[in-house]
Amino acid sequence: MYDAAIVGSGPAGLSAAMNLHLHNKNFIWFGTEGMSAKVVRSEKIANYPGMGLISGDKLNKKFSAHAKEMGLSVTSKMVTNIMAAGESFTLLAENDIYEAGSLILAIGAATGRGITGETELLGRGVSYCATCDGFLYKGKTIAVLCMSKAYEHEAEYLAGMTEKVFLYTPYKDSGIDLGNVTRLGSPIKAVYGKMRVEEIELVSGEHIPVDGLFCLRDSVAPAVLLPGLAMDGPHIMVDRDCATNLPGCFAAGDCTGRPYQIAKAVGEGNVAAHSLLDYLAGN
Amino acid sequence: MYDAAIVGSGPAGLSAAMNLHLHNKNFIWFGTEGMSAKVVRSEKIANYPGMGLISGDKLNKKFSAHAKEMGLSVTSKMVTNIMAAGESFTLLAENDIYEAGSLILAIGAATGRGITGETELLGRGVSYCATCDGFLYKGKTIAVLCMSKAYEHEAEYLAGMTEKVFLYTPYKDSGIDLGNVTRLGSPIKAVYGKMRVEEIELVSGEHIPVDGLFCLRDSVAPAVLLPGLAMDGPHIMVDRDCATNLPGCFAAGDCTGRPYQIAKAVGEGNVAAHSLLDYLAGN
Repeated sequence: MYDAAIVGSGPAGLSAAMNLHLHNKNFIWFGTEGMSAKVVRSEKIANYPGMGLISGDKLNKKFSAHAKEMGLSVTSKMVTNIMAAGESFTLLAENDIYEAGSLILAIGAATGRGITGETELLGRGVSYCATCDGFLYKGKTIAVLCMSKAYEHEAEYLAGMTEKVFLYTPYKDSGIDLGNVTRLGSPIKAVYGKMRVEEIELVSGEHIPVDGLFCLRDSVAPAVLLPGLAMDGPHIMVDRDCATNLPGCFAAGDCTGRPYQIAKAVGEGNVAAHSLLDYLAGN
Repeated sequence: MYDAAIVGSGPAGLSAAMNLHLHNKNFIWFGTEGMSAKVVRSEKIANYPGMGLISGDKLNKKFSAHAKEMGLSVTSKMVTNIMAAGESFTLLAENDIYEAGSLILAIGAATGRGITGETELLGRGVSYCATCDGFLYKGKTIAVLCMSKAYEHEAEYLAGMTEKVFLYTPYKDSGIDLGNVTRLGSPIKAVYGKMRVEEIELVSGEHIPVDGLFCLRDSVAPAVLLPGLAMDGPHIMVDRDCATNLPGCFAAGDCTGRPYQIAKAVGEGNVAAHSLLDYLAGN
């Protein structure tokens, strides 16, 4: 069992990881090799003290280099579910299970409001993980919401597995061109079904019968990721120590609320790590 | 009148100043030309994300260069008293008076616990400002607590003005060598007097009659600096938005509590600035 798990490799997750490392904790750090897609997408950052005016891509490279210099490495798996079980947390990441005694959520701000019915039908036709659940839909018809080009290989994997895919991407230049993939011109508004997913509804009003819906996003909504987590609107509720309502679970960065700023994120990552160290010392 | 005043030029003050500048606010920023003496004194800093392992001196130079690149400049005066007056704040800095509609305190952690009797006799023989009050002690005997070499020129100014000085410095290599200056071998423990300062007591137990006591420190204790400010022990009490109990007054960095970390300070400076912008927008 790990002392701690950190979910997220943006500025908050990095800041937290650095401090747990300096305190010799045995932890696992989930994220993406590319560190922070959000930082990379920032054209210019003027207010990260000490860096001067810098491009997001260059700052992200500096974050990455700093992590490497420290010997930190990211486990590139998407965490899709966490359970608080007594004194520890069980994390599900692409069919693998991890145990940790404490947790830092640095999962970024939830983008978009989710799809109506998504949470209710999660695990009953709604899935966040192509690798985990794709095989369940052999020969079937599914809808896929692909929020980022980074997940197109997962959408293609699903197309290879299933009979037919209705695909929606919020961006224009999708590289997916397969015979059994139909592009949706309107966003997915809702998903319906009694026992399991039966159909989706588009913003245009069109209804399409499907057997499943895969939502491929950068992050899972916090309350879905970790049931029982107290929220303040779309944000994880934390106190000044970055502690959530669940003992041993801390949160940092955009997921805890505005301002959505790199300086704020590194600050909270630092605070969350120190609070976690206090928590482990007390246990 | 300024939109805002920032007190302190460490990482929290810098981060706040950057954000007010980017939002075109008319503000005054009090601090020292050297930015942060505390950062400079840090031998190595490993956990300021993106900088790698860096010396405190080098990081401070990067902070300074970033401020200069933005066209920010520090007003090198020590703020010794602030009054909350209705919708604005009145700041006293070395005999000059400034008015601001809002305030960010980024004054660092109070070092030491102060001297017994200091707060009670402030303005009645206890002073924090040689330039302001030195002339009152012509031909008299005073005690001077000089906490940093940066203030030795003020101690020398006082020695030139007065008959006799009893000097205590917590560091060893003081450069002060004047005929009327007696070095104290023991720290000052207390200051006593009925209407005004009459004598000091050293930790060694010795009592020395004096007419005044000058405390030359990096910062003034928050509750003395701004009467009415709610404290949490030695720290300024703030909420998640870095708001204090006084409307329009925000605080950031070490003065709000642990962890005493640069990442936390820049994060709170950013948050305090954004909260202040919301406050000004609402007024």
